Amino acid sequence: MNFYKMQGAGNDFVFIEDFDNKIKDECLLAKKICDRHFGIGADGLVIVRKSELAHARMVIINADGSRANMCGNAIRCFGKYVYEHKIATGDKFSVETGDGIKEIEIILENEKVKYVRVYMGNPSYNGCDIPLNNLESLIEKEIAVDDKKYKMTTLLLGVPHTIIFESDREYNVIQEGSKIEKLDIFGEGSNVNFVKIVDDTHIRVNTWERGAGATLACGTGCSASVVVAKKLGLVNKDKEIFVKAPGGELIIEILGQDVYMKGPAEVVFKGELSL
Amino acid sequence: MNFYKMQGAGNDFVFIEDFDNKIKDECLLAKKICDRHFGIGADGLVIVRKSELAHARMVIINADGSRANMCGNAIRCFGKYVYEHKIATGDKFSVETGDGIKEIEIILENEKVKYVRVYMGNPSYNGCDIPLNNLESLIEKEIAVDDKKYKMTTLLLGVPHTIIFESDREYNVIQEGSKIEKLDIFGEGSNVNFVKIVDDTHIRVNTWERGAGATLACGTGCSASVVVAKKLGLVNKDKEIFVKAPGGELIIEILGQDVYMKGPAEVVFKGELSL
Repeated sequence: MNFYKMQGAGNDFVFIEDFDNKIKDECLLAKKICDRHFGIGADGLVIVRKSELAHARMVIINADGSRANMCGNAIRCFGKYVYEHKIATGDKFSVETGDGIKEIEIILENEKVKYVRVYMGNPSYNGCDIPLNNLESLIEKEIAVDDKKYKMTTLLLGVPHTIIFESDREYNVIQEGSKIEKLDIFGEGSNVNFVKIVDDTHIRVNTWERGAGATLACGTGCSASVVVAKKLGLVNKDKEIFVKAPGGELIIEILGQDVYMKGPAEVVFKGELSL
Repeated sequence: MNFYKMQGAGNDFVFIEDFDNKIKDECLLAKKICDRHFGIGADGLVIVRKSELAHARMVIINADGSRANMCGNAIRCFGKYVYEHKIATGDKFSVETGDGIKEIEIILENEKVKYVRVYMGNPSYNGCDIPLNNLESLIEKEIAVDDKKYKMTTLLLGVPHTIIFESDREYNVIQEGSKIEKLDIFGEGSNVNFVKIVDDTHIRVNTWERGAGATLACGTGCSASVVVAKKLGLVNKDKEIFVKAPGGELIIEILGQDVYMKGPAEVVFKGELSL
């Protein structure tokens, strides 16, 4: 079985093609392939399939065998894969995901893929959408957790995201994120993003992902952080914002209500599996 | 750059050939290649070189860029590599390592490599060899660590190994191993093996490796555990002993003072690196 290993901001995936839907036990295969000692090793397995609705269909299975509807880092890698393997022609195409159809744009430099740009949708602060328990919305509200106070804003952008701007102290992503994720106010938990404003076009984001823990970069988390930073006037409202995450840099643009994420995607190696 | 990814009892390595000694900055390359998100991902990089003293020379660099003289799991993979790539002819050959020349034997089944057998050397209980501080030897001696008592035997087999047979309680490899490793009686620390006797030809071993922590399988640790189990009459003195480690099974034979380790080695995939 031939495969490609790709990564986007350090979030890494094994890509295999299955145009004829021959792979049956996807979850077992993902667990086997993603094992970092006995398999290829990856955060997830991405299966490239044909789509009747778009140019290709992306199926993501996490290393633990669970399914993911969508992932910002995976879809940038997917965009590069579709472009370089000529599954779609041209630099704009669509991909079917578990979270609907995503529009992709390839940005070239010297005929090579520099960035992949993905439309991330519209954010919502509505408590029913997020969902929040018995709250219409949660915007810059001070909430106490144990003996600490946090000013939180929560929005839905693909998944629920809570944004906390770092003040005078450094936050511990693991210890504090894991507690905030599970607060009773969240209907289905929340990702937690600790954000530091560097200047009017640069921020730093450390994300605690619901279920996955502290990750190297969360595409929707970086996007949601920029949405809130712009709303509160903490960064330039008209320019694109550069977001530094532990695994790499993403660039977030907001046009009206529409959020776009742009970032790198790399092929690390291609291989042939003996499993 | 072409490579093979191999594993022995879950200890995994990237193999690259460098017959012309072209690779200069090996440590930097190992760190890059072994990174599990941005590189291929492995416990170590193994470079296959020519030797003037043996059929091939094995250079191992750990994921953190430090050098290793020898590794029981890596040398089994190395043996399989040398055999399958016809670097040596025949099923018996020698490999130059940082710990001297190792004699290898390939055991076939249906013309495929079933096991690789490696001569592990002679054990020593001598306090100067191990080394121990101000002790001639340490054999079945009760030592207290915090509020717990352990009956310990320490020997040198490649590296210092302390053997503790599990009694009525389960041991916590990480918490207890990390403390025992650093006891003042050890001149250069010690690996710690928690051993359970299953029957007269089967034991279970969990190893805490000095520097590396709790690992999936330690070839010298499994060997040293059998040496002591035989010495104390806890297993059959004349038969080979099957050792179950978390990452897989090794088979240890003792002929006189000579210790041989036999076990599997697998190619997981081959690839071409884009780094």
